[in-house]
Amino acid sequence: MRISEDQLASFSSTDFHIRSLDLLRERFSKQNLNFEQVIRKIQEFQIAIPSAALGNGKAKNKKSRTGGEPRNLNEKLEDIGLLQQLTCKTNSVSVYIPWDMPEDYKEVKDLANELNLEFDTMNSTSSQDQNQKEYAKLGSLGNPNKAIREEAIAHNEEVINIGKKLGSRGLTVWMADGSNFPGQAKFRSTLGWTEESLREIYEFMPSDWDLMLEYKPYEPNCYHTVVPDWGTSSMLAKRLGARAKVLVDLGNHLPKTNIEQIVATLMYQNLLAGFHFNDSKYGDDDLNPSSVKPYQLFLIFCELICGDQDGAQAWDSISWMIDASYNTQDPLVDLIQALEAITIAYTKAMLVDRKKLQECQQNGEGSQAQEILQMAYLTDVRPLVCEARVRAGGVAEPLEAYRILMIRNKLVHERGVKSYNSIF
Amino acid sequence: MRISEDQLASFSSTDFHIRSLDLLRERFSKQNLNFEQVIRKIQEFQIAIPSAALGNGKAKNKKSRTGGEPRNLNEKLEDIGLLQQLTCKTNSVSVYIPWDMPEDYKEVKDLANELNLEFDTMNSTSSQDQNQKEYAKLGSLGNPNKAIREEAIAHNEEVINIGKKLGSRGLTVWMADGSNFPGQAKFRSTLGWTEESLREIYEFMPSDWDLMLEYKPYEPNCYHTVVPDWGTSSMLAKRLGARAKVLVDLGNHLPKTNIEQIVATLMYQNLLAGFHFNDSKYGDDDLNPSSVKPYQLFLIFCELICGDQDGAQAWDSISWMIDASYNTQDPLVDLIQALEAITIAYTKAMLVDRKKLQECQQNGEGSQAQEILQMAYLTDVRPLVCEARVRAGGVAEPLEAYRILMIRNKLVHERGVKSYNSIF
Amino acid sequence: MRISEDQLASFSSTDFHIRSLDLLRERFSKQNLNFEQVIRKIQEFQIAIPSAALGNGKAKNKKSRTGGEPRNLNEKLEDIGLLQQLTCKTNSVSVYIPWDMPEDYKEVKDLANELNLEFDTMNSTSSQDQNQKEYAKLGSLGNPNKAIREEAIAHNEEVINIGKKLGSRGLTVWMADGSNFPGQAKFRSTLGWTEESLREIYEFMPSDWDLMLEYKPYEPNCYHTVVPDWGTSSMLAKRLGARAKVLVDLGNHLPKTNIEQIVATLMYQNLLAGFHFNDSKYGDDDLNPSSVKPYQLFLIFCELICGDQDGAQAWDSISWMIDASYNTQDPLVDLIQALEAITIAYTKAMLVDRKKLQECQQNGEGSQAQEILQMAYLTDVRPLVCEARVRAGGVAEPLEAYRILMIRNKLVHERGVKSYNSIF
Amino acid sequence: MRISEDQLASFSSTDFHIRSLDLLRERFSKQNLNFEQVIRKIQEFQIAIPSAALGNGKAKNKKSRTGGEPRNLNEKLEDIGLLQQLTCKTNSVSVYIPWDMPEDYKEVKDLANELNLEFDTMNSTSSQDQNQKEYAKLGSLGNPNKAIREEAIAHNEEVINIGKKLGSRGLTVWMADGSNFPGQAKFRSTLGWTEESLREIYEFMPSDWDLMLEYKPYEPNCYHTVVPDWGTSSMLAKRLGARAKVLVDLGNHLPKTNIEQIVATLMYQNLLAGFHFNDSKYGDDDLNPSSVKPYQLFLIFCELICGDQDGAQAWDSISWMIDASYNTQDPLVDLIQALEAITIAYTKAMLVDRKKLQECQQNGEGSQAQEILQMAYLTDVRPLVCEARVRAGGVAEPLEAYRILMIRNKLVHERGVKSYNSIF
Repeated sequence: MRISEDQLASFSSTDFHIRSLDLLRERFSKQNLNFEQVIRKIQEFQIAIPSAALGNGKAKNKKSRTGGEPRNLNEKLEDIGLLQQLTCKTNSVSVYIPWDMPEDYKEVKDLANELNLEFDTMNSTSSQDQNQKEYAKLGSLGNPNKAIREEAIAHNEEVINIGKKLGSRGLTVWMADGSNFPGQAKFRSTLGWTEESLREIYEFMPSDWDLMLEYKPYEPNCYHTVVPDWGTSSMLAKRLGARAKVLVDLGNHLPKTNIEQIVATLMYQNLLAGFHFNDSKYGDDDLNPSSVKPYQLFLIFCELICGDQDGAQAWDSISWMIDASYNTQDPLVDLIQALEAITIAYTKAMLVDRKKLQECQQNGEGSQAQEILQMAYLTDVRPLVCEARVRAGGVAEPLEAYRILMIRNKLVHERGVKSYNSIF
Repeated sequence: MRISEDQLASFSSTDFHIRSLDLLRERFSKQNLNFEQVIRKIQEFQIAIPSAALGNGKAKNKKSRTGGEPRNLNEKLEDIGLLQQLTCKTNSVSVYIPWDMPEDYKEVKDLANELNLEFDTMNSTSSQDQNQKEYAKLGSLGNPNKAIREEAIAHNEEVINIGKKLGSRGLTVWMADGSNFPGQAKFRSTLGWTEESLREIYEFMPSDWDLMLEYKPYEPNCYHTVVPDWGTSSMLAKRLGARAKVLVDLGNHLPKTNIEQIVATLMYQNLLAGFHFNDSKYGDDDLNPSSVKPYQLFLIFCELICGDQDGAQAWDSISWMIDASYNTQDPLVDLIQALEAITIAYTKAMLVDRKKLQECQQNGEGSQAQEILQMAYLTDVRPLVCEARVRAGGVAEPLEAYRILMIRNKLVHERGVKSYNSIF
Repeated sequence: MRISEDQLASFSSTDFHIRSLDLLRERFSKQNLNFEQVIRKIQEFQIAIPSAALGNGKAKNKKSRTGGEPRNLNEKLEDIGLLQQLTCKTNSVSVYIPWDMPEDYKEVKDLANELNLEFDTMNSTSSQDQNQKEYAKLGSLGNPNKAIREEAIAHNEEVINIGKKLGSRGLTVWMADGSNFPGQAKFRSTLGWTEESLREIYEFMPSDWDLMLEYKPYEPNCYHTVVPDWGTSSMLAKRLGARAKVLVDLGNHLPKTNIEQIVATLMYQNLLAGFHFNDSKYGDDDLNPSSVKPYQLFLIFCELICGDQDGAQAWDSISWMIDASYNTQDPLVDLIQALEAITIAYTKAMLVDRKKLQECQQNGEGSQAQEILQMAYLTDVRPLVCEARVRAGGVAEPLEAYRILMIRNKLVHERGVKSYNSIF
Repeated sequence: MRISEDQLASFSSTDFHIRSLDLLRERFSKQNLNFEQVIRKIQEFQIAIPSAALGNGKAKNKKSRTGGEPRNLNEKLEDIGLLQQLTCKTNSVSVYIPWDMPEDYKEVKDLANELNLEFDTMNSTSSQDQNQKEYAKLGSLGNPNKAIREEAIAHNEEVINIGKKLGSRGLTVWMADGSNFPGQAKFRSTLGWTEESLREIYEFMPSDWDLMLEYKPYEPNCYHTVVPDWGTSSMLAKRLGARAKVLVDLGNHLPKTNIEQIVATLMYQNLLAGFHFNDSKYGDDDLNPSSVKPYQLFLIFCELICGDQDGAQAWDSISWMIDASYNTQDPLVDLIQALEAITIAYTKAMLVDRKKLQECQQNGEGSQAQEILQMAYLTDVRPLVCEARVRAGGVAEPLEAYRILMIRNKLVHERGVKSYNSIF
């Protein structure tokens, strides 16, 4: 389904919004902030939706169904199209293989064109979810058995081939490989095999593609994961070549990790591939971005803007993708919230008085730096985000519009109550 | 003071020891383990003592004094000489500057010669303990102020010069630099200045010296440390050159870190400089090695042996140093315990049936791997450690001998009850 | 299947064992340790097997199958019977309902009698694994919906009724109830409903039964669990009455928790119900006991012995159960390892020179306390454990016997390769 | 020094402020929120300043001095008077003994009266900072040595006596007691002695006083702290009597603890004494409130309001105190920031649409709950806080006024550059 232009137009911004925006403009008038530029940057900022998020999710606890879930990749594109109509924040899909195999490439690409959607990074799979595969047990690209490693490499090459047909430009590799008990795996061997496998994949990749290496300290493994931290991921990336970089998934860190520092350190080396946005309190919970640690997301965007402005690593070289699992409620509602939360963090970070902050940093003035950050963080930037969205053709309040338009009901009507495919 | 040969000889091994050793030999007879080689390796294994550990310590909580503390570097050498006589496990000192400045180089070197002690890696200081220095506040090698960075570089160069005179071959750098609040420091700038400063130090170093870069996630900093993890440390090391490597201090990790895997990953890259041995339950507690997590230390030695045997990184290229702080009791007692605990972990790791283990690893057999590791870990290796020590000229039970010989009493008699210098 | 007396007798202890035991006796002769009493205590120490551990497990990652899994509760009893024949360490089963519903009570009880097995604590279920139940989503005993709470109470009452018929004497309640996002649940309401529900269950329980309340900080919940820590569990237990106590599952704690202290604090209040033994490095991994933190298990047993000897809480009032999930290899092998590892920790703790330790504690002598604990911990107690087992009619080396007797092969032959029931 | 009425009046609110407030009022008009009541509640909310925060701090790293520090309790009262003039958020001081002994009671009380300040909870000291005391080493109220316990009890009784003379109504007890190595302390004994000592203190207390028991998992202890968690603290409080309650210091928790849930659980039992406000990323960092985890503080206030409204525990029964250490910059600046940050969190929590939220909670609607919380959290409440302050006689922008009035300069002029007393 599509939302009509008329319907969209009926959710325009209010007089209240205009006054809010004016007040905001006034507040930052002293700071020499280019408001129009901020709005333009918000508009340009687009976040990819993972195909896996739209169906029945990849949550640990698959608790509920909303009905009307997309039954195939085409219907997932349609869902993203709806999100884009409402929010103007997501112009691409990141496809997971084998979960979202395209059936008819022409049809899929035509549909994407029609919806103004692009194909972001492709995702291969190495985890135990593919429990029909032998490599579920002892790993994929780092499996001690060469035949299984070759199977895993072939799977990645297939994903690249599919991506080439779709027009994608990159491959994200997350390896669930690891072990559960001390002694069970030989660290250096698994790492070595993984490096070899990745090299084959890297060399198979078209020359204009990027390889994005994710890392994760534990889960599903209980003792060791082959690529547990950014250090290992960046070591492998550097050994592979300039088109291999490190992907940061916010949920994949040990307790208390300073993630914003990792982001800065990767930018220092021009090694940041991009993000999987989500949030967590305990483990790899894949909760909605900003639902637990909104200030951390703000601090990360501060580093991103700073690194871009300093010329450490260009903004456009970084990929943005949501990786939250929508397990208790309507996934489209969750995705609208996620897109909004990420954009808010980004917008707040743009309001930081960087000039003043750098002066503080030169003198290590902690409480003054805190004051400058808070000045931006405490600001209600929703009028700015709304303005950018409305100017781009979206609605003022996407969640409200989603409900008033009864989109979920319509999807259930179109696709049925129990429509999801049962890949997981 | 020195222990006389006669006194040492009076603490020889017992008949009970001989029977215990025989039984141990019998237990491992099936495993094709070269017992004599194990004993020889135990003998060859020597751990450096940090000069800072012998006086009033560097503990957070300086709670007690034993009396008889060494009053200068010479007396610290004498203390290490006593440890060596009893344990035969420590033939070197790792000197901290400015805390243990040599006064008369010839005298110090003659004394070391006499005691058969060598000068291990030198240690410079960047922490707030040097509170007379301006760089205490905003860091040393990464300070925003160039003049202070130069001062910090000069301090390191001075340490190298001192080390050259003493016959040392390496410099350990731990930077306390960091910040307490978000925004207070600019991550990439501090990192960049740190890299520049380290490069100057690296280039100043004699060509046969090694630079050992420590890392630590927090403390004394509350928000960010310039070199927080092995990833940052190894990035810097690689950029400096082949003689820069990564030093692992067991207490300097985030909760739940798999340290044995880090050790393996560093050996994979021939990047492991060595260790600061200690233990901790919460933060950087500098507790005695094995006092909280003895199995972790065993697993680390399993990786070290495995990496050496595979040719990943040679055993002899690795430095061993204690870095525990002895705050509640007699530091010599603590050090004897530390030397013993580390040697026990090493010896147990040598008993692992590596051939069988590798077979398990090829098939990912977790519980069998666990069985093989436990077979070694549960073995009481004290007879082996004792045998190695006695053959080398040490005593059967160092702690017992230390008490019977009333060494602390004698030191107090010699040096006074309140003898420590008050550098801290 | 049963192992014949002749077969068992063929795995008796060796001359090597006898000499090892003699040497051990000699070593502890000075310590005034009653060796025969230690052996008797090892023999008396019996650990319950959870019925859930014997089939296809309750692991997050069900990776492998061995074949020959028990197809019903009777066959699970048979498996425990085999474990008991080999190890003499487990004389009871802890039944999970609804997973292991008895079909014919008389048959089950007769079989248990024949195998000398008892029925330990019963386990009800509240987790999302029962995904057919409505209360999977918003909890069971603490669900906002009264009808669902009543359903959950009725389930627990049914479990009690089943347990009464089997001759059990207690109920273990673990509530998976909780929420995933801030705001999703009202903390005090859920807690209040949980208390009310537990009170109904408590009052339904026969007067000679105990209620054991487990706690867990997270998993499957991502933000909040109704009973997250021992504090909440003990608050509820005290409000219910004297027969309600707190169950400690080793894997259910926040990072860095001092579990041995919790054990002591519960004994201080006579509130310790018992244990679910397992181990973990990251989350609730349900790894084999002692496979990651063996020293912690030793320290826990030190507290248990100390609390019993001081009269704080009697040894016999404490329940012992394994709660590890056996997901990569033969569950019987894992269980033999688990029984052995727990017994080893207990035995080592019995060797601690408690009199000397108390003297140290009076003076806070850390390094001497460490020495006393190490004296016991470093001792190889396997000869003691073996002696106790052989005297009780078990085999010298259970794992070896299990393999030589080819028990798994026989079970596969009897029950088939793909024999497990598919409850999970 | 005092700020004159004229000076204060010169920092009144602006037209921009009035329009911002109007817009805010408009935004919440639909929500049936009583704006005037919110402003009144903000005004009533008063946070105590610890006397220890005003001098040279109690930070781990005492890095800098601003000059003009108060030289005695009277000058500390003056500093709080200045804070109160500017912010109208702090009408009381929480005195630490022996660090801030009153010299002349009449003078101190007259000064407090003049400044409209009250004496909040008194604080005794048990930590190693009192290193002249014997009980520094093995604890205070839980020391194995009875004479030292009695000394510690006497110290607390003296603090009560001082507090009685000042007009205080409560005693806060934090015990640094604990141990550094496994085995060093006997858990149950130390706990038992602590309980006995606390009972003596409790009984000594006037009948209208409250005893507030703090808890902390580690630091300065490396292995065990006698009162490590809210469970232990509440067990002791309940055993002592109705006037003993649990104090929550935000920095004193294990990694990943859900503190807002602890707050709710304490209110469930009417056991919450109050707060020590601060923030931390790693350990007990005593950073400024909201400087690392502002959303956590908001969620805590949501629980506080909810518990008050439900009648679980009355708002007025809860104490509020800052416990951050101001180590890098001007402590008065830090305290103004702290007061502001806490008030902002409270104000945002008042904006939550509790009626809607409760409806969500009844159905466990996670993403809708998230939306409701965000609606309040994302709102810029500074106009409300400012309005409340200005109406109460304070200034619109306290930090700005503090700088324009050059208060620090004046204090330095009055008291000297190096004026602090050297108690620490």
